[in-house]
Amino acid sequence: MLHARSVALSRRHNLVREAAARHSVDALVVTSRSNIFYLTNFTGSSAIAVLTPDRLHFVTDFRYVTAVESLQQSEDACPSLELTVVDGSYDATLCKLLVSLNVQRVGFEAAHVVVSRYNWLVNQLGSGPAAPALVPTEHIVERLRVRKDEYEIETFREAARRLSAVARGVFEEVRAGRTERDIARAIDARILDGGFERTAFETIVASGPQAALPHAHPSERTLGENDLVVLDFGGVYRSYCVDLTRTVSVGRASGRAREVHAAVLEAHDRAIQAVAPGRSRFAIDAAARDSLAARGLGEAFGHGTGHGLGIEIHEDPRITRRTGDAAAAPGKEVKEVKEVNEVDEAVAAGMVFTIEPGAYLPGWGGVRIEDDVLVTEHGVELLTNVTTDLLEL
Amino acid sequence: MLHARSVALSRRHNLVREAAARHSVDALVVTSRSNIFYLTNFTGSSAIAVLTPDRLHFVTDFRYVTAVESLQQSEDACPSLELTVVDGSYDATLCKLLVSLNVQRVGFEAAHVVVSRYNWLVNQLGSGPAAPALVPTEHIVERLRVRKDEYEIETFREAARRLSAVARGVFEEVRAGRTERDIARAIDARILDGGFERTAFETIVASGPQAALPHAHPSERTLGENDLVVLDFGGVYRSYCVDLTRTVSVGRASGRAREVHAAVLEAHDRAIQAVAPGRSRFAIDAAARDSLAARGLGEAFGHGTGHGLGIEIHEDPRITRRTGDAAAAPGKEVKEVKEVNEVDEAVAAGMVFTIEPGAYLPGWGGVRIEDDVLVTEHGVELLTNVTTDLLEL
Repeated sequence: MLHARSVALSRRHNLVREAAARHSVDALVVTSRSNIFYLTNFTGSSAIAVLTPDRLHFVTDFRYVTAVESLQQSEDACPSLELTVVDGSYDATLCKLLVSLNVQRVGFEAAHVVVSRYNWLVNQLGSGPAAPALVPTEHIVERLRVRKDEYEIETFREAARRLSAVARGVFEEVRAGRTERDIARAIDARILDGGFERTAFETIVASGPQAALPHAHPSERTLGENDLVVLDFGGVYRSYCVDLTRTVSVGRASGRAREVHAAVLEAHDRAIQAVAPGRSRFAIDAAARDSLAARGLGEAFGHGTGHGLGIEIHEDPRITRRTGDAAAAPGKEVKEVKEVNEVDEAVAAGMVFTIEPGAYLPGWGGVRIEDDVLVTEHGVELLTNVTTDLLEL
Repeated sequence: MLHARSVALSRRHNLVREAAARHSVDALVVTSRSNIFYLTNFTGSSAIAVLTPDRLHFVTDFRYVTAVESLQQSEDACPSLELTVVDGSYDATLCKLLVSLNVQRVGFEAAHVVVSRYNWLVNQLGSGPAAPALVPTEHIVERLRVRKDEYEIETFREAARRLSAVARGVFEEVRAGRTERDIARAIDARILDGGFERTAFETIVASGPQAALPHAHPSERTLGENDLVVLDFGGVYRSYCVDLTRTVSVGRASGRAREVHAAVLEAHDRAIQAVAPGRSRFAIDAAARDSLAARGLGEAFGHGTGHGLGIEIHEDPRITRRTGDAAAAPGKEVKEVKEVNEVDEAVAAGMVFTIEPGAYLPGWGGVRIEDDVLVTEHGVELLTNVTTDLLEL
């Protein structure tokens, strides 16, 4: 009997095969680690997958052979997997495999293969009439990953439930006299205690004027009375990333702090209300942005409203302005903006993304409020579930 | 007055310019984050550097403008830096900059630019007679990074001193009844307490039979009496990585454990004794390998003897067999093996690398002992300094 996760993989393989056929390639070489996990359930760090019409050829080195064998005996087994152990180097092994498969046109992931590697492969495969030709493809697997399947949605619900529980504990860590760095470490410990494999990114604890920097690293700054503190953290649960931000006050919040918090919260709520299948991701961004602009905080919101979640912490869809933002999200690695607008504009059922508007006032501080949402058949489901009130701790 | 670190950067820029001239390029586009740090002292996550004969053009987005301005006012300032803030996207900004510089042949880092990005840039720059041509280059900056300068060597000495102090504390964490994961977390906390910015890789705590897997992840396994435990951890100090492994016994070590440990220690010592400027890195590997083989443990040592350290945890030189190993080091991401033999064979003064032989016996367990060494003008300096006795804890 095939288990549910194996069936999910079969379905993914077939969708990739259909997309490959549209590129007229006989085989697709998958080198992105996240894409390999998505197609195989393999969590190791080194492998190459080659998908053909009837097989998934899996190239890995001696260190992972035992892991692949256990995977194949588990209920997460990858269907039609055929193992090739690296002999010499990964790429030499890949070339030998491609030649043995007798394929003509071989797709590769142009967004995940560097130019020097591509040149080496082309050279190695040669240019004879029987030599396989390498054909650049883009986003074949990534496009599938955007809409989550049942297993993934269940994983997100559980991950978000756990991260919400972590958040409630995090509030207990915030008090005057502690440093940002100290609190960040306590948050990381709580994430691991919460059953996450690891933190999803470097935890942000940004207090007082530091909170005006969306990308602040936790510093040795000591929290003082009346500081606003942005707490942004995430975890990886069964290989999937969730992400949450709350902004709290140390002791009494000032009038201005309440005002800015209320404005960001309204933007957050408006954006969530704008989420439904078929809606434009730019319109969801605009719902948050217009709301802040109406309160005079348009200029204070420099980043996008949200980003997709999945095997990576930043995926499609990007909930941004139509023109694209230099930064899709605060404090994290920036993708080239040219990618931002490449995927479809409308969001669809099964997509999971963050909603995280903020307002940053240099010299004063900042507020960001972030939740994770799932687009459902009829609207939106809030995955994270923690109070959005401005807590005074 | 120019500070020491700025002078070091000027020297690096000029060496890169000389290498660029050998490729007949008028400008070199640097996109590797580690290489950008090496040339600018910029620690942010997103930037592009374009080195021309008299300037370092620095492209970054609004999030990092303040950071660049503070850098330029510090003693770590990057000489002749000219800031360009991203307008639209990084790559569109880069193209505009290249056109404005009026350059003909532009080198780029072929090992750090993916094919889709390359194709986009080529298309964007156009093919007219005045359009800049993109010329692939490899290892220009990496080659310089292999030999550390005075500032870097001082940083390594301090980092290794700190990691050694951490190691002595780590031994206190090991006792029967604790899980691997629990001990790994305690090690990570000690690394941060030791003044490191972060851990350099996922800490390895591999006990009993788990220790037979060079790449084991810390598990929920509870340490028992007579277990051997491999402890492999590292930290990033002022952006530089150091790395250390010790294998200890929980309670009394068995006779076999003492034997294997003594064999690995001998291999470790032999390899360190083999280090001197001008020596072949393959000969250093062979010193460890032959020593283990003489004790019947040749087959039990499946990875390379060491790897270079620097801004990244795995750099050149690779201390491996001449044919290259699939894994240059245990438990970490594998580079394509074709790269292994590309740099010079002889080690030279200023190189910093690990010496980490091991023996892995499936079902029984394993031993690894790792130190960090600096090649000096006349021989070798041991950077890490912790007992190599088989501790019974």
